[in-house]
Amino acid sequence: MAGVRVAGVGLTQFGRHPERTGRDLFAEAALAAREESGVPSDDIEELNFGNYMGVLAERQGHMAPLMAEAAGLDCPATRYEDACASAGMAVREAVRTVRSGESDVVLAGGLERMTNLDTADVTEGLATAADELFEIRQGMTFPGAYALMARAYFERYGGSREDLAHIAVKNHDNAFENEYAQFHRKITVEEALDAPMVADPLGLMDACPVTDGASALVLVSDEYAAEHGLDAPVSVTGTGQGGDNLALQDRRDMASTPAAEKAADEAFADADISPGDVDAAEVHDCFTIAEVLAIESLGLYERGEGIGAARRGETTADGDVPVNLSGGLKAKGHPVGATGGSQVVEMTRLLRGDHPNSDAVPDADVGVTHNAGGTVASAVVHVLEVDR
Amino acid sequence: MAGVRVAGVGLTQFGRHPERTGRDLFAEAALAAREESGVPSDDIEELNFGNYMGVLAERQGHMAPLMAEAAGLDCPATRYEDACASAGMAVREAVRTVRSGESDVVLAGGLERMTNLDTADVTEGLATAADELFEIRQGMTFPGAYALMARAYFERYGGSREDLAHIAVKNHDNAFENEYAQFHRKITVEEALDAPMVADPLGLMDACPVTDGASALVLVSDEYAAEHGLDAPVSVTGTGQGGDNLALQDRRDMASTPAAEKAADEAFADADISPGDVDAAEVHDCFTIAEVLAIESLGLYERGEGIGAARRGETTADGDVPVNLSGGLKAKGHPVGATGGSQVVEMTRLLRGDHPNSDAVPDADVGVTHNAGGTVASAVVHVLEVDR
Repeated sequence: MAGVRVAGVGLTQFGRHPERTGRDLFAEAALAAREESGVPSDDIEELNFGNYMGVLAERQGHMAPLMAEAAGLDCPATRYEDACASAGMAVREAVRTVRSGESDVVLAGGLERMTNLDTADVTEGLATAADELFEIRQGMTFPGAYALMARAYFERYGGSREDLAHIAVKNHDNAFENEYAQFHRKITVEEALDAPMVADPLGLMDACPVTDGASALVLVSDEYAAEHGLDAPVSVTGTGQGGDNLALQDRRDMASTPAAEKAADEAFADADISPGDVDAAEVHDCFTIAEVLAIESLGLYERGEGIGAARRGETTADGDVPVNLSGGLKAKGHPVGATGGSQVVEMTRLLRGDHPNSDAVPDADVGVTHNAGGTVASAVVHVLEVDR
Repeated sequence: MAGVRVAGVGLTQFGRHPERTGRDLFAEAALAAREESGVPSDDIEELNFGNYMGVLAERQGHMAPLMAEAAGLDCPATRYEDACASAGMAVREAVRTVRSGESDVVLAGGLERMTNLDTADVTEGLATAADELFEIRQGMTFPGAYALMARAYFERYGGSREDLAHIAVKNHDNAFENEYAQFHRKITVEEALDAPMVADPLGLMDACPVTDGASALVLVSDEYAAEHGLDAPVSVTGTGQGGDNLALQDRRDMASTPAAEKAADEAFADADISPGDVDAAEVHDCFTIAEVLAIESLGLYERGEGIGAARRGETTADGDVPVNLSGGLKAKGHPVGATGGSQVVEMTRLLRGDHPNSDAVPDADVGVTHNAGGTVASAVVHVLEVDR
């Protein structure tokens, strides 16, 4: 089985790009990844592309060959869609393809345009990631779904809106120096608590923003990297995927995310590491409560223990295991179909030491990324390790 | 590298199912495939699911975990989308996953609901598989796109509407006995030529219908099949994928489909066969001209020679290499995201000898399937072989 290295990464600025098309955004990220990698375009054998709602945002389906063309590639291209875990899946399948020897070089990433839709349309578009018959028709949207999960968690384990506010504060702090982040504004706990309520107990500062953006990575086999003398110190050493019932009502428990637990178990076994080995994590904090569920699903905390982690300063930049040093979905932004790729890009930069927040984890060997779809009916976890 | 066998196949009736949900249709196909395979659901490790326009037809994205649940599976699930080649891609990645040893058993297939949309909406939905900026906004829809390809072909190589009519007649003949087909009605060349013009030179009888339906296959490793004593005589011995520019205007030639040529070259090399070994083919005849381009891309005919194949009786049921014995997209129907899986299902039945049209190919060893997205910006080809 071939080892898999990250040879180059690329991102667009996350935020509002009303004047730019999806192909334009993805091309920027892909060309940046290609340039950093030094891999000639003819060597790229496949494009794995994540996107969620291009048909709604741009009336554009069948995006994969279009994005290959935009990225200057002449190779087969496939779109992966598992809602907000779409790019995580694109990366996962790229890792498996390189490992199997089917291809030596795969470009993986994703894209979402969202800000060109108005708030009602983007909310409705995102809601299609839940169960149309049993959730959407009843009026459920994602702030409401995650509010239900937060309430279930609070009832089972305790916790408060203030605990959640500390997560938002932390992630805004982390985004402050990240040049790609949507928000470069620190907030306070009071500010978070005073923000308008969206779906009790989640207020505006518990929710990630609506974001345009793209991410891309060039993944290569160890052998290819060695043969071509690439500077690619970061490897993807573990990958895992989990699934669950789509509708919350069909779950046994709303205060945990077993799909992510399965994905983490698989990825950790694959990399032959344990949660105690993790030095930094990028997790899917579409809402603050989601970060709590994520760090518990990764085994960084026991169930019920993750809620106070940010408040106690354990997951902050100066904590034991910093979480979302990128700023997370909350403050870096969440272009749905790009996010899973962006997490791997950010972790690569953190481990290589060229991220603005790398000084928070100077000796980090092992990083983990956690990407979730819907109310974690889909989950993808990756383990990254760096040569030291 | 593990060999890959088709352990079980399932289809719904293709046609109009206004009273049924997508999950209901996919469950029927998946449960049929599971039952035929004899594989216990706990052994199914992954679901690869193809769908194109569920967000438009049912306001349902993130379908993969929903379909896993509907099919009674507790495993990770991923949606593949390459327009009309979505299920072909789902099958291809399942084949590669089993080969690599990542999983021993994968369920692959697809679904589309279309008839609940009115004609204008379904046409607009399908058009999202073309280039939104440079084709759709100019008013192009797929009948127009394939009409341009037919005109380019006629101009380069000759050919007539009557040549195309023979393809429609053949495929209606083939569908007649296929219990899953949308149309059980034979037509004549005169009827095809007299049908209303849609986009000159393509008339109504040159176009496939709008269809609801689902397809599913249980794919297993040779080793799994042997260990469990499965009756699975058909193997997938070759897989290939090709890509091209999305917009017709960006192609060098509109009278050929290089993406499908690349996919065929790869699949044939993979299976170590040549076009002369092919005994039967299921190809993507969304329009009659597409069948011509398909059989040329597969190397069954030289460029410019495929146009007369049906008229000369070479691709009919009693011909040398019957094409679309299922009835093809034209007469069996074309539920977009299910079609690529359905082709592999039909070829499996043909090779096993339990298809109503198996008597047309009693000694067939090698079958080929050809699935295309858009104006063949995406293409997937599979080679199937049967133990004799």
